[in-house]
Formats: sequence, structure tokens, C-alpha cells
Amino acid sequence: MNRERVHIIKIGGNIIDDDQRLPSFLALFSRLEGKKILVHGGGKLATRLATELNIPQQMVEGRRITDAETLKIITMVYAGYINKNIVAGLQAEGSNAIGLTGADGNLVLSHKRQSSSIDYGYVGDVDQVNGELLHQMLGNGLTIVVAPVTHDGHGQLLNTNADTIAQSIAVSLSGYYEVTLVYSFEKPGVLLDVEDNSSVIPELNPGLYAKYRADEKIFAGMIPKIDNAFAALSAGVKKVIIGKAEELDKLISGYGGTSISL
Amino acid sequence: MNRERVHIIKIGGNIIDDDQRLPSFLALFSRLEGKKILVHGGGKLATRLATELNIPQQMVEGRRITDAETLKIITMVYAGYINKNIVAGLQAEGSNAIGLTGADGNLVLSHKRQSSSIDYGYVGDVDQVNGELLHQMLGNGLTIVVAPVTHDGHGQLLNTNADTIAQSIAVSLSGYYEVTLVYSFEKPGVLLDVEDNSSVIPELNPGLYAKYRADEKIFAGMIPKIDNAFAALSAGVKKVIIGKAEELDKLISGYGGTSISL
Repeated sequence: MNRERVHIIKIGGNIIDDDQRLPSFLALFSRLEGKKILVHGGGKLATRLATELNIPQQMVEGRRITDAETLKIITMVYAGYINKNIVAGLQAEGSNAIGLTGADGNLVLSHKRQSSSIDYGYVGDVDQVNGELLHQMLGNGLTIVVAPVTHDGHGQLLNTNADTIAQSIAVSLSGYYEVTLVYSFEKPGVLLDVEDNSSVIPELNPGLYAKYRADEKIFAGMIPKIDNAFAALSAGVKKVIIGKAEELDKLISGYGGTSISL
Repeated sequence: MNRERVHIIKIGGNIIDDDQRLPSFLALFSRLEGKKILVHGGGKLATRLATELNIPQQMVEGRRITDAETLKIITMVYAGYINKNIVAGLQAEGSNAIGLTGADGNLVLSHKRQSSSIDYGYVGDVDQVNGELLHQMLGNGLTIVVAPVTHDGHGQLLNTNADTIAQSIAVSLSGYYEVTLVYSFEKPGVLLDVEDNSSVIPELNPGLYAKYRADEKIFAGMIPKIDNAFAALSAGVKKVIIGKAEELDKLISGYGGTSISL
């Protein structure tokens, strides 16, 4: 049975912070045919605002801690400023976009991260995605824009990793659609030589991946991303693509980036 | 024909800024039966944040101007911090709330205010409400929470009066539902004697209103609110109630506030 396709695209700070690249990305994204979801990360505005307000960054063992004041800024910047400007930008491009956090319509329910060693503060790990809500909205012609803020169901908002939200949403929709998940980052794909942007590996499957890893061809920093991609595929996602957001059309049509499948 | 009812409640800064009163209002609101929409105004947090960031308030002829920096703060505070905390608070009370600005799903399309005398900056006057979107979402069991930010369809967000948004939404839904619009403010209703909170006028219709005005019994500050209420009623809204948000249950059941109808 041929199922309808949905594309879930995750963009990060390198696009969000760039006044030139963000609008051109939104134009490209709005031209992508069919049902689609954009998940955005944070960018540097939250850090800049915290500095201007003299809110110190809490770091413990090299990890940033989300204290109450930082959560407030994250909610303002990610769920307010960034999310609503992306929505207005997509509306201008003719996409009927709607911006959501995990609290809206109970889209992403999470729990405050428990760790015996570090108190991460108001950081949420995902428990459940309301795929039915996304399915209804996509069915009504809406393009969904998700900010990396979730809730615990007891009134507490939580800062949540955008990669994880994108992956959880992708898995939740795999029962309804043939899902392609695109992780965009600063490189054109998974590289055989991290110094050479022309060394993109066009396709990865578990066999090839095992071979490249045995040959130590995969950059260590990419390994968690690729492992997450395989986890999403095992959970029902059809394809994961890693590459540059500016090349979204090429990534989707198979002429760019690294396409990962089982 | 008996049509289904929907309640639209507008709350202002006096509730939003109060850490005690907001949660008790949300508990009361969540217990209100049937389809419902909450429209919130701003509150003092945006002004406080602007002061902390050394963004001067632009005033021209006694009116506040929304410059680019002020709009940014309004978007962060109203659409981000306030809207998402209200949504999370309602979720905790068991209401499946979803927070929207006018840009989301093209809910409220507006245009930048044109005035030959004053440039108000990024202030939007409402052109059109997407009642169909609200109707779909209410039908899916969602409680809608609207922030006073709209868009012009060309990528520009605009600061828009929450009373006007509530009224425009009420009118847009009057084709689908029997609509009750509640304007909450600091007084228990329209007062015959502005110094005496027990002098609430329980019901107003055009005849009574004309009589009270001829007798100069209506406080001048209330006249625009009441005129707006009659405008909403003429455009199809069934009932407008003015009173205290903390007495929402009484307002709805007819045991408090001023009920305005044609």
C-alpha cells in the first residue's frame, strides 16, 4: 500500500540566527510539496538576551543548566520570538503555518530529567507525542512549526532538545504516513573526511555503517546523530536525511546529503 | 433551532500579572463547561522587560508607540511567556489548551494602522478572523488561548488590542455558535456609582442604556466598552457580559456582572 508522505525538517541555530539565510530557507521549505513539519532549535538570541539581562549561565561539568530564569528566556525567545516570526514568514510564502510548543494541544508530554549526578534544572525528556493532533492538523492543510519547549502535564514548561522532538514526532507519525526526517546542520552530509565537504557519503545502511566504523571513517561527533537516525528507522520512520538546510530541495530529491535507511 | 454555545473570555493585566489570581482563574475557567476561548492581554511584564533592557517607551501625544524593539518584546512576552504558561496551566487543570497568535493558521489577519497624524508603529487593526480554523479546533475538543499579536500576511507581526481580538473572534464564530463574550476587568460590572461596587447594573439593553446615559449614570470610561459590546451584538454575538474574572462562574450563570443584550 502506498501511504502518503510527510516530511519533518529540523533546523538549528546556524539558520535561525542568520537574517539572510532564514528567509531563503523558509521560501525553499514552503515550496516543498505535501504535508510537512518544521522543528526549530534555539540559536544565540536566548544567550544574548540572558547576557543583556545579567542572567548568568549556569554550567555544571560542562553542561548548561536550565534554571528558572533561563527557562523564562527560552520560552520567550523560542516559543515567542523565533516561532512566531517563522510562522509569519511562512504565511507570507503562502504556507498556512501554525506554531506549537509541546504544551499546545498536549503535543509533547515530557518529564523533568532525573539524574543522580547533575540537576539539569528545567530540562524535559520526551514521554509521549500526540500524533493524532498532528495528523488532524496536517489533514486540515496546516504546516506545523514546533518550538523546543515541552510540558510535564502539571503546569511546568520544560526545555527539550529539538533533535529529540523531531525524532519523537517522526516516530509518532510513522503509523499514519511514510515519514522522511531531515536533520539539517552546517555540513553537506556525513563526511568520509571531515575537512572535505565533497566527501559526503550519499547513502548509509546498517551494513555500510558497520564497515565505515570498522575502518574508522566516521567522525566521532556524528556517531550519536547516526545512531539516533537508526533508532528512528527501527521505530518506523522510512528515511532519515542529514545535510544542509539550504539544499533542502536536493536532500529531498536524493541529489544531496546522506540518506540513511535500513 | 438551539445552537451549541461557545464562551469567549477576555482577561487583562490585573489577572495575568498576579501569581495568585491567575492560577485560580485558570482553575475556574477550566471548569467552565463546553467550548471556550481565552483571549489574554499583556500585563506589566513586557514593560518591566523593556526597562531592564533599556528600551525606552516611545510616547507620542500620550499614546504608546510600538517600535521594532517593543514589538520584539511583546512577541516574546505575550506570545511566548504568558501564552505558553497559560496553556501549560490549563493542561494541568485537564483542559486540552492550544495557544495561538493571529499569525498561527492565519487566525487574525490585520494591517498596520494608518494615521495621518501619528505613526503608531507596529500596531495592527483587524481585517479578518479565520473562524473556520477555530470551529475545527473547538470541534476537536481544544480550548483556544489567543495572544494579542496578529500578522499582515506579508511576514510582519503586529501588536493588536486584545479587546478588539476578542470581539472579532466572537463575531466570526456567531455563524457557527451561540456566542457569549465576557470582558473581564477590575470592577464587578458596569456601575451606577463608580465608587460603589454594589451598584452593578445587572442588565443593559439599548433602551436602558439610552436612559442611563440621558441621566448621566454611566461612567465615561465605560462608554467605549459598552458601545463595542452593542457593536458585537449587532454583528451576531448573542450576549456580552462585563465583570470580574474571579467571578466567572457567576457571570456565566447570570448571578453577577452586567449582561448586555439587544
